[in-house]
Amino acid sequence: MTLQVGVIGTGMIGQDHIRRLTNVVSGVEIVGVTDIDQARAAAAAPAGAEVFTTPSALISSKKVQAVIICSWGPAHEEQLLASIAAGKPVFCEKPLVTSEAAALRVMEAEAAFGRRLVQVGFMRRFDADYRRLKAVIDGGKLGAPLLFHSVHRNASVPEGLYTSEMPLNDTLVHDADISRWLLSDEVTGVEVRVPRRSTRGGALRDPVFVLLHMASGALVDVEISVNIAYGYDIRGEISCEAGVAALPNRPATVISDASGIRQAIPEDWRERFIEAYDQEFREWIVAASKGTAGGPSTWDGYAATLVADAALRAVTSGGLEPVNMIPKPKLYAAPTAMAAE
Amino acid sequence: MTLQVGVIGTGMIGQDHIRRLTNVVSGVEIVGVTDIDQARAAAAAPAGAEVFTTPSALISSKKVQAVIICSWGPAHEEQLLASIAAGKPVFCEKPLVTSEAAALRVMEAEAAFGRRLVQVGFMRRFDADYRRLKAVIDGGKLGAPLLFHSVHRNASVPEGLYTSEMPLNDTLVHDADISRWLLSDEVTGVEVRVPRRSTRGGALRDPVFVLLHMASGALVDVEISVNIAYGYDIRGEISCEAGVAALPNRPATVISDASGIRQAIPEDWRERFIEAYDQEFREWIVAASKGTAGGPSTWDGYAATLVADAALRAVTSGGLEPVNMIPKPKLYAAPTAMAAE
Amino acid sequence: MTLQVGVIGTGMIGQDHIRRLTNVVSGVEIVGVTDIDQARAAAAAPAGAEVFTTPSALISSKKVQAVIICSWGPAHEEQLLASIAAGKPVFCEKPLVTSEAAALRVMEAEAAFGRRLVQVGFMRRFDADYRRLKAVIDGGKLGAPLLFHSVHRNASVPEGLYTSEMPLNDTLVHDADISRWLLSDEVTGVEVRVPRRSTRGGALRDPVFVLLHMASGALVDVEISVNIAYGYDIRGEISCEAGVAALPNRPATVISDASGIRQAIPEDWRERFIEAYDQEFREWIVAASKGTAGGPSTWDGYAATLVADAALRAVTSGGLEPVNMIPKPKLYAAPTAMAAE
Amino acid sequence: MTLQVGVIGTGMIGQDHIRRLTNVVSGVEIVGVTDIDQARAAAAAPAGAEVFTTPSALISSKKVQAVIICSWGPAHEEQLLASIAAGKPVFCEKPLVTSEAAALRVMEAEAAFGRRLVQVGFMRRFDADYRRLKAVIDGGKLGAPLLFHSVHRNASVPEGLYTSEMPLNDTLVHDADISRWLLSDEVTGVEVRVPRRSTRGGALRDPVFVLLHMASGALVDVEISVNIAYGYDIRGEISCEAGVAALPNRPATVISDASGIRQAIPEDWRERFIEAYDQEFREWIVAASKGTAGGPSTWDGYAATLVADAALRAVTSGGLEPVNMIPKPKLYAAPTAMAAE
Repeated sequence: MTLQVGVIGTGMIGQDHIRRLTNVVSGVEIVGVTDIDQARAAAAAPAGAEVFTTPSALISSKKVQAVIICSWGPAHEEQLLASIAAGKPVFCEKPLVTSEAAALRVMEAEAAFGRRLVQVGFMRRFDADYRRLKAVIDGGKLGAPLLFHSVHRNASVPEGLYTSEMPLNDTLVHDADISRWLLSDEVTGVEVRVPRRSTRGGALRDPVFVLLHMASGALVDVEISVNIAYGYDIRGEISCEAGVAALPNRPATVISDASGIRQAIPEDWRERFIEAYDQEFREWIVAASKGTAGGPSTWDGYAATLVADAALRAVTSGGLEPVNMIPKPKLYAAPTAMAAE
Repeated sequence: MTLQVGVIGTGMIGQDHIRRLTNVVSGVEIVGVTDIDQARAAAAAPAGAEVFTTPSALISSKKVQAVIICSWGPAHEEQLLASIAAGKPVFCEKPLVTSEAAALRVMEAEAAFGRRLVQVGFMRRFDADYRRLKAVIDGGKLGAPLLFHSVHRNASVPEGLYTSEMPLNDTLVHDADISRWLLSDEVTGVEVRVPRRSTRGGALRDPVFVLLHMASGALVDVEISVNIAYGYDIRGEISCEAGVAALPNRPATVISDASGIRQAIPEDWRERFIEAYDQEFREWIVAASKGTAGGPSTWDGYAATLVADAALRAVTSGGLEPVNMIPKPKLYAAPTAMAAE
Repeated sequence: MTLQVGVIGTGMIGQDHIRRLTNVVSGVEIVGVTDIDQARAAAAAPAGAEVFTTPSALISSKKVQAVIICSWGPAHEEQLLASIAAGKPVFCEKPLVTSEAAALRVMEAEAAFGRRLVQVGFMRRFDADYRRLKAVIDGGKLGAPLLFHSVHRNASVPEGLYTSEMPLNDTLVHDADISRWLLSDEVTGVEVRVPRRSTRGGALRDPVFVLLHMASGALVDVEISVNIAYGYDIRGEISCEAGVAALPNRPATVISDASGIRQAIPEDWRERFIEAYDQEFREWIVAASKGTAGGPSTWDGYAATLVADAALRAVTSGGLEPVNMIPKPKLYAAPTAMAAE
Repeated sequence: MTLQVGVIGTGMIGQDHIRRLTNVVSGVEIVGVTDIDQARAAAAAPAGAEVFTTPSALISSKKVQAVIICSWGPAHEEQLLASIAAGKPVFCEKPLVTSEAAALRVMEAEAAFGRRLVQVGFMRRFDADYRRLKAVIDGGKLGAPLLFHSVHRNASVPEGLYTSEMPLNDTLVHDADISRWLLSDEVTGVEVRVPRRSTRGGALRDPVFVLLHMASGALVDVEISVNIAYGYDIRGEISCEAGVAALPNRPATVISDASGIRQAIPEDWRERFIEAYDQEFREWIVAASKGTAGGPSTWDGYAATLVADAALRAVTSGGLEPVNMIPKPKLYAAPTAMAAE
């Protein structure tokens, strides 16, 4: 009953998932790893796991029942297509792929296979706070959601490595995905406004303010601040017709001292979402053990790709950039049977 | 040492101010009232106060040292100009006037007089929560303010009486004024987005989402929801370079019962801002007793008029509507000497 | 309609009340002051106020309609009795008197006069947070109050001047009075426990933990910590049969910075209760203008005296020290007609 | 590397632990179960697990590496002694045993074995909120802990089944254990006060108010209310020399609706402590796999037994009942090497 998995890519996030699957989450065994850096792969491999020389060798190995893709984005398409061709469930870290065309090809392959095989790494959907928030909205007592105020703040980003495209390419996709999920809606257009620049980030375009126009007419505004010094702070508040629902403060000891009455704020995403990552894999393992996938789908990865593309266009155009999705394939039409989704 | 004042307009807000000046605030005596409805004026007049037949009679009366204007907006310009001509300090309820041209005429008259005489009724500037928030921003430890998220929610508005222009004409002016004051900045442009409509307001355009572009580059986003059922909820959060400052929950007993752990929310603006109104008049009386005015000025009323005009244009145009103010007259250049300002 | 008052005692608290009655509260005029230090009295006297040489001269002066006693405790009895003999409403700072016998004499005098004349300075009853808390309890939805957890923390106390008796003599009386008022109950016994001593107060007995046994059977536990460094923090939570009601955090800007998400705490009692003091006098003026008194009564001052005496005995005895009050005189039986009480 | 465990007792809590070890926690396999009700044991046994006819057969089975005791309290001593005799790590649900003499016998057996083998089921020590609270206290910045206010509220208890001894026997032991752990201290005496009775519990003695006197002089006050209707609410606040640390509100969506601004409260202990139970077993498995035990020890179970006994005596006596523990055996002297402890 233990799922035998292979891990492609043993960089920072790959190593973290290997630790998670080895020490925290049950029902899974890592039987193979691979990386373009074979030494790194060997160092990361748990006892008993085979080090494969190529992703395709790992994917096609009989001992590998399911695949975890933690390689860099441009490599995802090929690895996803190979996994689907092999009929193996696959967990794929963000981004799903790096172009709309690639996303369409992966969806076509999955549709041709006839069953969902891919879960994309939007871990926020597994966070307990977001799940409770969605339950309140879905409960319907507050009426239809009309406005969603989503806030994404990083204490800092690596100077030089973090470019002005990244708030839209890497960060906004989380807010876009969680907006689609919380509101059970789709993004139809994106606007970007660039406010006064923070002096803390040098030439970096920071903060960025984004409006997501949803199919229902609901409007999402997103604050992205990536050098705000004080911590990693994720906030969200949904204004509905007859009330408002919001993420709470993170649980932290309430201290009264010379700084006032206060609660600590997470330092980074690892601290904030550590349990969401664990839960993400718990649910993936359950679905993969049945030969399928739940949670964020190829469709969701496709949507994120289009939103990021539109956001980058909107920075330049200053206008409302449309997000034109294809009709939703049947494979993604119905919610999966997974309880928490 | 008691300031002798006359009140023009004895409708709801006028009566409330008469009650306030009679029972709550010290250093003031109402010596005259007037209203287009003489019977209403007579009924509202405190003991010993004269009922004048016209505003101009009240303004020119020797027993009236200072004037409070609570008449309807279209009458304000004439009453303001008469008060300034008489050299009498004047408190004027919102709106200052109803057109840009009128605002310019009032500013010119005040400039010609050579001293500030007008205080406009933006009571939020006298609210303790907003004042503490401004003190934090002005303190500078959080760095420059970059984004301000301002939320204005009404439980309900009078059906039929409240039109789709009013969120921009009557409500937005508060958010615009408090934004200018909190950020020590000016509005240079306005955008309006109209999200999915609440079914609770019939055909009313509700909610409305507004972006105020500030001269510094700071961006203000404003949620206006006027039928949200649960209460009168005013929120504000300012993202700065190195931290965030926000209005707190209103003080209210923390009750743990079947509804959870909870605090009541004010029912309406009277409950929320009652102390701000009191303080507004305390400070007006101090300044008026010295023959001048502090707090929100004719300049601020002028700015509010331009923002409301731009917002109404922006609804139609869908674009960024500029707010082009004249150069700031010297009279309004320096902050007044009032401590709390 | 302005109440003409005389102030006995122009030390720190007397000066603060003179400022309050001159600048903040309406409907009152200070026409006389006196102090054992005549120079201090002269310095504190507002323009136009007479400096009396003795309290009795002030009390008997025809120009004085009502009396405010801010002298030291041992002088209160004589000044209260003289005021009552003169039939003049009197506001008396804590402590009412310094012995049970004295309290009984003042009550007898007031009873003989036939109308309440004395209001004691328990300002917490005029604090908006405590009033809302009482309204919730009195509303009855939570059922009968069973336990009250009352917390009194000072940042620091003056070294050398503050003795180990003072937490029970000066501080506990506030918690005792507010307990009686919130629970509409009487104290019947007192226990004191002395926990591990804080090293911040030297030899001072700090903190102190007190149990008040109430006539209804409800139990009040009181934490008194007077050197806790971080601020002046007054807390209270009442456990009822079907829920809990508690004082909220004080309103303060919510700041997110390197110290976490936080709100400032008041520095001292002046900051915490400034509005309660104002309101205390507003209501006193209304009652005194009618020749009577509302709010905390001689009976309440008597109760406080007995509780403090019992607490001091309990420190020594280690046991439950009874509080034996006389039957409640009719004069104090019914709640006064004052709305807020 | 998978720990093979046997479970004694398949009632409610036993079944919940079987579910937990099968579906949630990794590194463990249930290889045997037993219960006085053989049918119940058979129904609860996971696939592949042997149903033993007696606890001793399970304990002595070679396939069982470690034992989980979920039987009723009076059976614990014999099962613990047998497990220790077999040299097998054992997790024992509360109460450790039901008499002081039995606790001493178990400690002697463990001491004779020479290594810790027993972990007692005080799951609060594994709760993230309590752990953060302890980290703040242990960090020392707030100075020594002087007072701990611990609140334990149940929405309701089973009528008829829940007796007046149970708040002290079953509930207080949690507050006592967490007090000892948070303050790194021992209980030396217990007082109990019985306030006004809640009408919601019929003849049940509810609420109960307890004082724990600690060896350091610190004082712990405990509110136990078991019929408070609104939810399961566990609170704790520690007053130190230079500040205060408290458990936060539970994470729950912040909803603004007709009930105010509010957060839900857990319904029962299962909801509140579900993650603590999971973590309790994760850490037990790690230690048991090494042939030893960490976390709450036999010593801690012994302490709880003495506190409960003293509390029951204190109800009758009305006085301070001493808790006289034997000198701490060396086996329990040093903190275990477990990181989280």
